[in-house]
Amino acid sequence: MAREDFRFVHRMRVRWVEVDAQGVVFNGNYLTYFDVAMTEYFRVLDFPYQDLADKHGADLVVVRSVTDYHSPARFDDEIDVYVRTGRIGRSSFQLLFEIYRDDEHLISGELVYVNVDIANRSSKPLPHAIRSAIEAYEQGKGSGAE
Amino acid sequence: MAREDFRFVHRMRVRWVEVDAQGVVFNGNYLTYFDVAMTEYFRVLDFPYQDLADKHGADLVVVRSVTDYHSPARFDDEIDVYVRTGRIGRSSFQLLFEIYRDDEHLISGELVYVNVDIANRSSKPLPHAIRSAIEAYEQGKGSGAE
Amino acid sequence: MAREDFRFVHRMRVRWVEVDAQGVVFNGNYLTYFDVAMTEYFRVLDFPYQDLADKHGADLVVVRSVTDYHSPARFDDEIDVYVRTGRIGRSSFQLLFEIYRDDEHLISGELVYVNVDIANRSSKPLPHAIRSAIEAYEQGKGSGAE
Amino acid sequence: MAREDFRFVHRMRVRWVEVDAQGVVFNGNYLTYFDVAMTEYFRVLDFPYQDLADKHGADLVVVRSVTDYHSPARFDDEIDVYVRTGRIGRSSFQLLFEIYRDDEHLISGELVYVNVDIANRSSKPLPHAIRSAIEAYEQGKGSGAE
Repeated sequence: MAREDFRFVHRMRVRWVEVDAQGVVFNGNYLTYFDVAMTEYFRVLDFPYQDLADKHGADLVVVRSVTDYHSPARFDDEIDVYVRTGRIGRSSFQLLFEIYRDDEHLISGELVYVNVDIANRSSKPLPHAIRSAIEAYEQGKGSGAE
Repeated sequence: MAREDFRFVHRMRVRWVEVDAQGVVFNGNYLTYFDVAMTEYFRVLDFPYQDLADKHGADLVVVRSVTDYHSPARFDDEIDVYVRTGRIGRSSFQLLFEIYRDDEHLISGELVYVNVDIANRSSKPLPHAIRSAIEAYEQGKGSGAE
Repeated sequence: MAREDFRFVHRMRVRWVEVDAQGVVFNGNYLTYFDVAMTEYFRVLDFPYQDLADKHGADLVVVRSVTDYHSPARFDDEIDVYVRTGRIGRSSFQLLFEIYRDDEHLISGELVYVNVDIANRSSKPLPHAIRSAIEAYEQGKGSGAE
Repeated sequence: MAREDFRFVHRMRVRWVEVDAQGVVFNGNYLTYFDVAMTEYFRVLDFPYQDLADKHGADLVVVRSVTDYHSPARFDDEIDVYVRTGRIGRSSFQLLFEIYRDDEHLISGELVYVNVDIANRSSKPLPHAIRSAIEAYEQGKGSGAE
């Protein structure tokens, strides 16, 4: 997916602790980058992650993650993590991620979140406010200048 | 995939540091569990991870990971990480993972490794010795009693 | 402090993700090892960490950590983490740690825990049951053969 | 130590993955914050960490860390990590850290680095260029406006 399809990007710097003995970021640490960028994405949508539970009764859990590793990030690299919403369903939505270092495409990823009733882990509908915030932002109608 | 299809299992205990504020293991940490179990799997195959590079000229990099989160692991849980080799190609192979807590199925996962020439990151054939060790083990001809 | 002064030891294996680009365990990760070994130490004392809060009303927080790095642990090393209680005060106690790889002394450490009232973070007395369990164990009166 | 004694500060945001089931940052993760801030500190001194080894023949290892935990950081907090050099010896130096959230003092820390000959782990003198860069910066003669 081309970077042009993303409105949101979060720049991060690779930490020493995230790099393994091969000198590259350990494969699982990209999921931390996705999580950090997701948090910033919801902030721009004006849905701070904490509020999702506190104000909107949403308990989002990740049910699937996919990562494709094209080229590794290294210590002290500045990387750009692009985030957008893919599919939105009744109780779930998919976030898509692309990581670049300058113009080099390093990583593609996907996370699927489901809104669950924590007590019995059954799915429940996404709060309307989240759905409309995502749609407004992704259709470029949002006020967010990121 | 049923547990019966796996010869290898590695038992681990969930650490406090691996659990997030929801009281469950952070999604990226399951990739650490896969990595730990993969290391033990290769030990049983008599191919310690260190030897792959040192003795067999293999530089394995992960090119894809997929994780399906059925139910979360929690602090202090003892979990069983099942590992087996799925597809083996000319220069790559796929490892399949299933994580259980007792009889409860928590996680399914997949990692695809490619043997690369580090200098130019082009793929190169898997060492024959690795391929035959995997095949011997998975076909139950190995000596490994794990 | 000599290893002979410790009744408790927990063996662990260094994970790939814990090692940095210099090929050695990142300095902060030894605090994870201390935490894992502390959990096992309390299990042997018959005070599972979860019970400290649930059954004994203790909310232990770490107020100080000290680590002396004599020699580094490396990927796949089997290390022995020795744990004992040092000072016990009215509301706090000190755990002492020594990490060895075979006979080589790698790390010395100390953690100070205080029992706090979470609401206002003021200290409160240690539950009597914890104090007596620690004292019984460290004086060799415990039943635990670890 | 008062914040006024520090020229350098690095602002960070607490990540979800860094918080434990008590909702606070795991004690060992503050050493990651120190490490990130140290990297930025050396960047301002015009001694990128990578150059220490590559250009100046320095192999710095941490031989001691001390952390005092006054009050915990929580998910999504913006924290300020203050860094300054304390003692400088022939082959070692001490970095001092203070972490604040707004005006609240959360953490104090100390790391001692020694320049070693990796082959035999004996200490060797600090490169003159590092010593003078630190002294120039800390005495306010540096060009760095951070």
